[in-house]
Amino acid sequence: MLTMRGLSFSTSLSLFYVISCFYLTNTVATARLPNIIIMLMDDMGWGDLGVLGQPSKETPNLDAMAAQGMLLPNFYTANPLCSPSRAALLTGRLPVRNGFYTTNAHARNAYTPQEIVGGISKDEILLPVMLKKKDYVSKIVGKWHLGHRPQYLPLKNGFDEWFGAPNCHFGPYNNTNRPNVPVYNNSEMVGRYYEEFEINNAESNLTQIYLQEGLDFILRQTRAQKPFLLYWAPDATHGPVYASKRFIGKSQRGRYGDAVMELDYGVGQILLLLKSLGIDNNTFVFFTSDNGAALISGTQGGSNGPFLCGKETTFEGGMREPAIAWWPGHIKESSVNFQLSNVMDLYTTSLAIAGISAPGDRVLDGLDLTPVLLNNSSSLKDRPIYYYRGNELMAVRLGQYKAHYWTWSNSWEQFKTGINFCPGQEVPGVTTHDQMNHTLQPVIFHLGRDPGEKYPISVLSKEYMDVLSTFTPIVQQHQKDLIPGVPQLNMCDLAVMNWAPEGCEKLGKCLKPPDSKPWKCFWPH
Amino acid sequence: MLTMRGLSFSTSLSLFYVISCFYLTNTVATARLPNIIIMLMDDMGWGDLGVLGQPSKETPNLDAMAAQGMLLPNFYTANPLCSPSRAALLTGRLPVRNGFYTTNAHARNAYTPQEIVGGISKDEILLPVMLKKKDYVSKIVGKWHLGHRPQYLPLKNGFDEWFGAPNCHFGPYNNTNRPNVPVYNNSEMVGRYYEEFEINNAESNLTQIYLQEGLDFILRQTRAQKPFLLYWAPDATHGPVYASKRFIGKSQRGRYGDAVMELDYGVGQILLLLKSLGIDNNTFVFFTSDNGAALISGTQGGSNGPFLCGKETTFEGGMREPAIAWWPGHIKESSVNFQLSNVMDLYTTSLAIAGISAPGDRVLDGLDLTPVLLNNSSSLKDRPIYYYRGNELMAVRLGQYKAHYWTWSNSWEQFKTGINFCPGQEVPGVTTHDQMNHTLQPVIFHLGRDPGEKYPISVLSKEYMDVLSTFTPIVQQHQKDLIPGVPQLNMCDLAVMNWAPEGCEKLGKCLKPPDSKPWKCFWPH
Repeated sequence: MLTMRGLSFSTSLSLFYVISCFYLTNTVATARLPNIIIMLMDDMGWGDLGVLGQPSKETPNLDAMAAQGMLLPNFYTANPLCSPSRAALLTGRLPVRNGFYTTNAHARNAYTPQEIVGGISKDEILLPVMLKKKDYVSKIVGKWHLGHRPQYLPLKNGFDEWFGAPNCHFGPYNNTNRPNVPVYNNSEMVGRYYEEFEINNAESNLTQIYLQEGLDFILRQTRAQKPFLLYWAPDATHGPVYASKRFIGKSQRGRYGDAVMELDYGVGQILLLLKSLGIDNNTFVFFTSDNGAALISGTQGGSNGPFLCGKETTFEGGMREPAIAWWPGHIKESSVNFQLSNVMDLYTTSLAIAGISAPGDRVLDGLDLTPVLLNNSSSLKDRPIYYYRGNELMAVRLGQYKAHYWTWSNSWEQFKTGINFCPGQEVPGVTTHDQMNHTLQPVIFHLGRDPGEKYPISVLSKEYMDVLSTFTPIVQQHQKDLIPGVPQLNMCDLAVMNWAPEGCEKLGKCLKPPDSKPWKCFWPH
Repeated sequence: MLTMRGLSFSTSLSLFYVISCFYLTNTVATARLPNIIIMLMDDMGWGDLGVLGQPSKETPNLDAMAAQGMLLPNFYTANPLCSPSRAALLTGRLPVRNGFYTTNAHARNAYTPQEIVGGISKDEILLPVMLKKKDYVSKIVGKWHLGHRPQYLPLKNGFDEWFGAPNCHFGPYNNTNRPNVPVYNNSEMVGRYYEEFEINNAESNLTQIYLQEGLDFILRQTRAQKPFLLYWAPDATHGPVYASKRFIGKSQRGRYGDAVMELDYGVGQILLLLKSLGIDNNTFVFFTSDNGAALISGTQGGSNGPFLCGKETTFEGGMREPAIAWWPGHIKESSVNFQLSNVMDLYTTSLAIAGISAPGDRVLDGLDLTPVLLNNSSSLKDRPIYYYRGNELMAVRLGQYKAHYWTWSNSWEQFKTGINFCPGQEVPGVTTHDQMNHTLQPVIFHLGRDPGEKYPISVLSKEYMDVLSTFTPIVQQHQKDLIPGVPQLNMCDLAVMNWAPEGCEKLGKCLKPPDSKPWKCFWPH
């Protein structure tokens, strides 16, 4: 796999066509369990797709995917930050249930930097574990982010294969105070970011590697006639953003747009392979992102379209995600469904597609979206969307209404250092820099009339009272029933960083960890 | 025509199909000059189309039109207000040249309310006048807005037919201090808004009337085998917004979205008729809007997508417009062209399509877009876009860069009364409430990386200096060469209002005007 980095585009593409033509004539696509591909982007915003309004129109393949499938404009993440969002997707449960949150301070987003001690709890049952009941072969390509200590890695949690990294690709580091993040092939590291896997001046061929890994996996499983889960999670749109030489300078947006164009190309190649192999009618593909665009990155970040603020916040820009479902012959082409849905539904829906009963011993927050996807139904319209920030229920959406029980962008202290999650936007009493408690009188918006959360409904109006009386019992019941999981993201320790990942000996790349000195992680946002 | 109001939907639709089937078999669509249809919306924003990112996805017909034609994401109006924008479209010239501006105060938008004394100058040559050289028959349906005194009306300015109103549909008035705005059929009034043409509680069938007027005209000209210009300018998305009963409550956005859905339906019906008649390959259709969404209307206004501010301003939200060009067999389907273009190009392009030379005795600001439209070329990429507010050149775009020479949203005085053209948005030093003069050091944005005009390029950067050195000679030359027209929007007089339009005697609807007391109009924005 690693050697693929060396292949030129034309070589790998020729290879690809030779292989795909071969399998086209040899594949029997009948009576097999449907394959599942979840494409999860990193920090890509709702407004980054052409079909969702990006003025530079960088995504012809995603736009075509939407035209061939279903667009879900009301699709959400479970948390406005990477790790909890990904944990929610793979467990079907809110981070506050699966433990991917912190109690170190009130309403703080936490994730899995290299110093995090915790990771995904052994008590959680991840999607690939469930899919094993029907002999699915599962691979994750790209970013894991559910804990990087050995017991938390993908192959210990149900995945058969992995090519990618456990953490964000921050760096470069000098390997003294902090190691560069390792890249794994299955259970062993095969190098580190900025070393064997270069990211130089925002140029890197990592997306191409991740694409080839995905295509190769699809080919192998198709040949083996095994149903598969491909969890394709490239990270090129997460800062520091990067693109490969072929895409550099191709967009109108600088490197961020270049990265989007390369990912869009990757999506197109994957769908093309499915068609070439004749398995498009037997493969459910879902495209989305882990959280809103990181507006803090300024012109290096993405777009949340008409929505308020971005990543880290529980405004629409932080948690509404681009979402396209694609399954020719099963999902109606060019359909738009306004069902409120979220990443946790991908767990439940994938199980339903595979014909596997969901675990009955725990609360699942995901719903089975197959009636929506396969019949374009709106039967699930009344389900709420919960917007958590750490341990706090910040807001709830039900139908077109959203009630903010707490508002916060970031602290004055942080804001004054130039950290701004809502640049160019300011809604008085809403994009607050103090944590404002509105639980007795929530700030309510109608997201149909006011997708940008600019015009709070008057608390004196009948509409407000009606909405509140609908929301209150639902929210109270949710909070009454909620049993938080043990928080996994409270403790940090420099000793747990990626000093000596499995496989480092063979490469001569083991580093010596410092002594263990755990502390309570500081989560400012 | 008027009696069509009484027809039920099903009746008029059946009639429509009968007629269209008849003509389908009787129309010879060869060797005829191309027909031209310009669909101009009122206060509809760039972000109001599904294909441009409106989350409620209310425009399946426009989205399909884009899929069958060309999307122009960089299309502009000539002024962020109705009348000057429309005057620019029909003359091919900037308002500051054609006289549709004021010198009463610095950098003020002016338009044609009922008390305006002026209108379109006799020195201007309007598009339908030019098209007469090739025997085009021209009709305007909907809002005129180029002056309502007799000499300024459409049939005195080249149009053969008109069904619509000279001014905005504000009201209702009691006809004592101010008359209700008349609705004309050709050169005579046939009633008034809120009287014969009802708008009650934001319900009105006016869009249906305007649709039937358009369909009827297309049918008649096709039967007569005459090339035609249809300028279809319904006003349902201008406040007070309205929709007909069939569309009320159909959108997720309230009445504004209902109006969008009805207009989208109208677009679909017009394109369907062209196809039914077999003249789609011989009809150039262009869809756009007169200025950005009126954000001042809050949840009753439209969306400018990711752009800054709205109507009245020279930020992108005020002047970037949705734009789709459609001409099956001539314009490549599903194409996106980033050419910088504007409403004045519609004048020049229409003449080119009709094979008529543009007037050679005056400066035209429109370019011939046929290379862009017909060959998907980008040969005109270097042309500037000028953003005027009244008599002041506020900003210029060239390529991806936009330089603001003046910034202003509205005055503190107005802002404090609750008038806000940028609700929820605030970019320090940019969305200013004083008229800020940046001519010596313009505020420069890169609209590819930063479509929302949030991140001014540092004046200390090389990029800034390079951009400035490109802009300066072009802007200086433009200003040096510019010969402003005689301003038409300076004087107001209650005596000139629509008291006794032609035709009022027959209807017994003449009102007595007050004595003439002209004054210099006050334009606050």
